[in-house]
Amino acid sequence: MEKQIKNDAITARDVDFAQWYTDVCRKAELMDYSSTKGFIIYRPYGYAIWERIQVYLNQRFAETGHENVYMPMVIPQSLFNKEKEHVEGFAPEVLLATYGGKEKLEDPLIIRPTSEVLFCEHYSKIISSYRDLPKKYNQWCSVVRWEKTTRPFLRGAEFLWQEGHTVHETEEEARVETLGMLKIYEQLGTDLLAIPFMSGQKTEKEKFAGAEETYAIEALMHDGKSLQSGTTHYFGTGFAEAFNIRYQDRQNTLQYAHQTSWGVSTRLIGSLIMVHGDDNGLVLPPFVAPIQVVIVPIMMQKEGVLEASEALLESIQKLGIRVKLDRSTQSPGWKFAEYEMKGVPLRIEVGPRDLANGQVVLALRDTKEKKMVPVATVVEGLQAELKAMHQRMLVAAQNHLEQHITDADSLDELLDILNHKGGYVRLSVSASPDVEQIIKEKAQATARVIPFHQQGLKKTCAITGEPAQRVVLFARAY
Amino acid sequence: MEKQIKNDAITARDVDFAQWYTDVCRKAELMDYSSTKGFIIYRPYGYAIWERIQVYLNQRFAETGHENVYMPMVIPQSLFNKEKEHVEGFAPEVLLATYGGKEKLEDPLIIRPTSEVLFCEHYSKIISSYRDLPKKYNQWCSVVRWEKTTRPFLRGAEFLWQEGHTVHETEEEARVETLGMLKIYEQLGTDLLAIPFMSGQKTEKEKFAGAEETYAIEALMHDGKSLQSGTTHYFGTGFAEAFNIRYQDRQNTLQYAHQTSWGVSTRLIGSLIMVHGDDNGLVLPPFVAPIQVVIVPIMMQKEGVLEASEALLESIQKLGIRVKLDRSTQSPGWKFAEYEMKGVPLRIEVGPRDLANGQVVLALRDTKEKKMVPVATVVEGLQAELKAMHQRMLVAAQNHLEQHITDADSLDELLDILNHKGGYVRLSVSASPDVEQIIKEKAQATARVIPFHQQGLKKTCAITGEPAQRVVLFARAY
Repeated sequence: MEKQIKNDAITARDVDFAQWYTDVCRKAELMDYSSTKGFIIYRPYGYAIWERIQVYLNQRFAETGHENVYMPMVIPQSLFNKEKEHVEGFAPEVLLATYGGKEKLEDPLIIRPTSEVLFCEHYSKIISSYRDLPKKYNQWCSVVRWEKTTRPFLRGAEFLWQEGHTVHETEEEARVETLGMLKIYEQLGTDLLAIPFMSGQKTEKEKFAGAEETYAIEALMHDGKSLQSGTTHYFGTGFAEAFNIRYQDRQNTLQYAHQTSWGVSTRLIGSLIMVHGDDNGLVLPPFVAPIQVVIVPIMMQKEGVLEASEALLESIQKLGIRVKLDRSTQSPGWKFAEYEMKGVPLRIEVGPRDLANGQVVLALRDTKEKKMVPVATVVEGLQAELKAMHQRMLVAAQNHLEQHITDADSLDELLDILNHKGGYVRLSVSASPDVEQIIKEKAQATARVIPFHQQGLKKTCAITGEPAQRVVLFARAY
Repeated sequence: MEKQIKNDAITARDVDFAQWYTDVCRKAELMDYSSTKGFIIYRPYGYAIWERIQVYLNQRFAETGHENVYMPMVIPQSLFNKEKEHVEGFAPEVLLATYGGKEKLEDPLIIRPTSEVLFCEHYSKIISSYRDLPKKYNQWCSVVRWEKTTRPFLRGAEFLWQEGHTVHETEEEARVETLGMLKIYEQLGTDLLAIPFMSGQKTEKEKFAGAEETYAIEALMHDGKSLQSGTTHYFGTGFAEAFNIRYQDRQNTLQYAHQTSWGVSTRLIGSLIMVHGDDNGLVLPPFVAPIQVVIVPIMMQKEGVLEASEALLESIQKLGIRVKLDRSTQSPGWKFAEYEMKGVPLRIEVGPRDLANGQVVLALRDTKEKKMVPVATVVEGLQAELKAMHQRMLVAAQNHLEQHITDADSLDELLDILNHKGGYVRLSVSASPDVEQIIKEKAQATARVIPFHQQGLKKTCAITGEPAQRVVLFARAY
């Protein structure tokens, strides 16, 4: 009872992965383009995925003592210029407002590309004693970065994200926060998105402008490229010094505070599409899916079909499962293709012949399996089906990831792996910036992370022949 | 056992209401100023109130078939200019971005003051048949209006809001939507905010730029002024004609669609402050309060006090009540003032002497009543206390409102009422624009709403002596 037809509405992945991606974004009705390049419209189905991510993270943030706030969407240019590295990192890509109410602004306003300076300015006003610490704030908002090349969810002139900004008494506490939030992002992957993130530290070259250390979660896409899907930063006291965030410590001495920041964005939707999708469209992990079960009546006009469908709808809703009954006059075939495109995990087909036998068809989006299930017991099995699918998708992605971490000992090996297999290449390298420069030029790949587990460190740098100092994962990346 | 001391940290309401308002905004830590005028920081306590409003409305919107989306924060100037009245209404107060990534933009970008044109442009692309209708979208976002005079929550250069935008097959359906959403806003008032809104239609002069009809909820502040707290608009086909939103109807004829829009904003926080607050600070209705119960241990070092407080905390949390135990080393007196300032509905004081008698003190924020309650039963009574307080606050606000709707028959009477009593003045007037012009000039008051119940319509216009056509409520307003 298997069904393996490709959906003709979209390009096949192996024919043109980039086109497949764009097709899925549009045809699954996740987004639409607006008339301003790089500013996309998050349609209901795409936005609902983001809302599921928000619910998960808001709960985790609250559990760990974080509070939500909202900062202005504009930053005066003069304020933005306070932290030098930060300015250099962001200045080339800002959107600048110069007129307010038809008058020219004396101090032009930058539409926030990120809000460090706003948080820092506020913190400098409200923090004076160790008793005021820690401050652990988070903000959900949109940010603007004037990118030349944009792609839906992956790189936008505007995107939605959360940015956490915290202030601590000690370096140790700030470091614990930095790694703790990375852990929460990893759990977001395993619990909700069925994505096993590859996590670790960023190299000096790849770290955030203004951070002492940056950590990242990276996800491996179906095409073998890596997508940075979230970052956490340890700032040390750099911003505190630039913005004068000081507190009286327990010995009555003024100290600069230690800070962190961390964020994930709607880029996670891009990860979901490219990790799990197939030639029929989106495949959504059950816990993040806006619709978890769709009921498709077959020959709706036949007696009992709509009634049975409505009864199922009601029982499933009672379980708190997100379910939709499609009563529209479109054909069942159209509906099958539509909800496959949208990646709905489970489909229940309610037809008159099966009903006569006390059965319905349950179709699984990930494996494309279809099975007959007694109508009397189909509902009680749904939670288990959803959990099993989540687990299956996570394991499949884990296997794909593990099969695509390959050791190499030379630039030639690296090139060979990237060109023929893709994924991450594990190299023992020196910490010299030359290594990344050479790999960038010769292989169009970048250092994704320095993994926490440094097992297998060799003596010699695979690229320069100098003594190797660390194991680094390289990949081509979005 | 009553306590009526004024909190010295804030100005008394009757001394300087405007200063009292600003004091409460700051001292209750609802907001802070940023370095850009009119762009405020929503601090955790203020933002949490907004989140409660979001939860309530999101549930109501979903129940009534609305879907959340997110549109770009920028509108190309050329697109903005499409609907003439709309442009004239908003153009004088826009923030304009003219540079992107250091290059001058050919078509400057307006930071959205409202998103009609973005929704319309999208709708024109995705609607082609009556089968595509209705479309009922809502967006949570921030908008920017370059206001000269700004006040926290009441009038901001940036504020947070939700904007609903819907498209319908028929005028009738769109009108039902317009009034249905007004009803939901009224229920937001009675269910969550304990604010009895005065609702009705706006006059031609006061309606939204581009709408055929505007309806509003108005709230009466403690100082007798009215605050427009939300609006719903019936657009007719005006925007559909400007943006070419057409659909094939059931007879295969192309028709322009009928539209609505509606919104409430963080101005509701201003309503909450000015309707319920007192000389000790904020008084929050229980269901919208971020902290519903605060536990203050007295002489924390004494045996049993902290243990009893922790036990209460745990039992109260289990009920799903938002509760905080303040374990800080501040004095009980400081804590009392602090949580009164923040308007926390219930305070439980846990002291060693009362505990020895098996009792705790329960203090009610609205009435300032303090009562002894057995520690064994205090928790089980909390839900009822919260409900009773909500009801009490709603009734008090209703009484205040009813006592401040006054009939008048002439401009002199109107002036007398506004100068000595405040509130709404009910006038029978002609529909001529002169009426509002005269009242604006002579009494600095505006038409707030044309109430749905037109009882008491007199024959002669109280202002012009022409035949009266309608009853209108006038007031001074924020």
